Amino acid sequence: MKAESNKPITLNTCLSPSLLHLYDVSSSIVVIIDILRATSTIATALYNGARSIIPVDSVAECIKLGKQMDVITAGERDGKIADGLKYGNTPSQYTPEFIKGNTLVLTTTNGTRLLHMALAEGALGIITGSFCNLSAVCDYLTSQKRNVILACAAWKDRVNIEDTLFAGAVISRIKNNFQQNCDASQIAETLYLQAKDDLFGFLKEKNASHYQRLMGYGLEEDIRYCLTIDNSNVLILYESGRLVVAKN
Amino acid sequence: MKAESNKPITLNTCLSPSLLHLYDVSSSIVVIIDILRATSTIATALYNGARSIIPVDSVAECIKLGKQMDVITAGERDGKIADGLKYGNTPSQYTPEFIKGNTLVLTTTNGTRLLHMALAEGALGIITGSFCNLSAVCDYLTSQKRNVILACAAWKDRVNIEDTLFAGAVISRIKNNFQQNCDASQIAETLYLQAKDDLFGFLKEKNASHYQRLMGYGLEEDIRYCLTIDNSNVLILYESGRLVVAKN
Repeated sequence: MKAESNKPITLNTCLSPSLLHLYDVSSSIVVIIDILRATSTIATALYNGARSIIPVDSVAECIKLGKQMDVITAGERDGKIADGLKYGNTPSQYTPEFIKGNTLVLTTTNGTRLLHMALAEGALGIITGSFCNLSAVCDYLTSQKRNVILACAAWKDRVNIEDTLFAGAVISRIKNNFQQNCDASQIAETLYLQAKDDLFGFLKEKNASHYQRLMGYGLEEDIRYCLTIDNSNVLILYESGRLVVAKN
Repeated sequence: MKAESNKPITLNTCLSPSLLHLYDVSSSIVVIIDILRATSTIATALYNGARSIIPVDSVAECIKLGKQMDVITAGERDGKIADGLKYGNTPSQYTPEFIKGNTLVLTTTNGTRLLHMALAEGALGIITGSFCNLSAVCDYLTSQKRNVILACAAWKDRVNIEDTLFAGAVISRIKNNFQQNCDASQIAETLYLQAKDDLFGFLKEKNASHYQRLMGYGLEEDIRYCLTIDNSNVLILYESGRLVVAKN
């Protein structure tokens, strides 16, 4: 598959933010992946009618914006609602009744930080990806004919299973549209093909670190929700400082 | 499993040198893994009677030591014999006839650099691991009752399949002796269990980047050799600036 310039277009998987510098971000669309739970929450809130989401790096910035603007402030640190914020990172909290027409300011441990890293590196485009909007992500990447980096938010830079699985899911669907020379992509796809019939069961069997953490907080329903394919199937773009649903 | 201090001992997998800072190197034995081909060559040369191997970071340092000492200088950059050095990184080159009683000074693209990183971080101990000495590595790690980091040299910091596979092989053998809470280890083991019946075929099927590179140089035999379990089964320790076979 070649882009208009006749150069082959590439598909790479970056398993941790600490590896992002190895990839040519400025010539790529970057897919931010933080399955448990930032990018799943983002998909849900926007699918349910949020006007936009402003991702910020710090809790302080989140609180500050909350005072300046008529917004809902939310965020987590280490999997729990951050001190000073009202709402957390549980996707099912963002029902249409709660979120429709509102702007959400969100800060999370890993996902929002990675998004800002990709921005700082001059990404050609930034979208967010989750199982909740898998098809929208795949359709968009196929249509763009641009280099793609599947960027896993990981957990404090340590590679994690669930983000890797999502990268694998995307790869298994769209790989034929790209030139591939990325071992991390092969690893991700192999993992996904093994896990795809029961993603929750796979995380449980492998005792995934984030699975343990969230189960410890009694958040099994969150995990199951975040592993459900296309339950909030909208394409989400980062534009002018905000995450928004792409206009058709 | 607990160490003498009664704290559980841990087993972690670090998939790239760029992630080493995330792990507690100073309380761990670090296994340097560079399957294609540095740590396979190291195992072979020492198994075949090399007195010791001095790993150095740069070609210049390698050449300099070669002038100062009665040693064999060898090394590669980008998979080929480095300019100014006589020998490369093909394990089968290091026959008993050639290497016995000699000291080898070796520099490679990824493996020797990672070793020096682990040294700089104050690793409790450093050993090198390859399929060629898999059993010796596993026996040692089990006997030590210390934290372990399986450190993949990767390719210019990009995660690769073959080093990940070796980490998975070690994990599948010794995991019951350690507390595990490392998603990268789970990913590595899953990959290995899928590949173990035909490691060469797996690299071929996945079109692993290093497989492609070495096949392009006509080095299929090197790849097959480096995937052969226990063909040079000695335990290799890094001591006082040199890699040596452990005394029994």
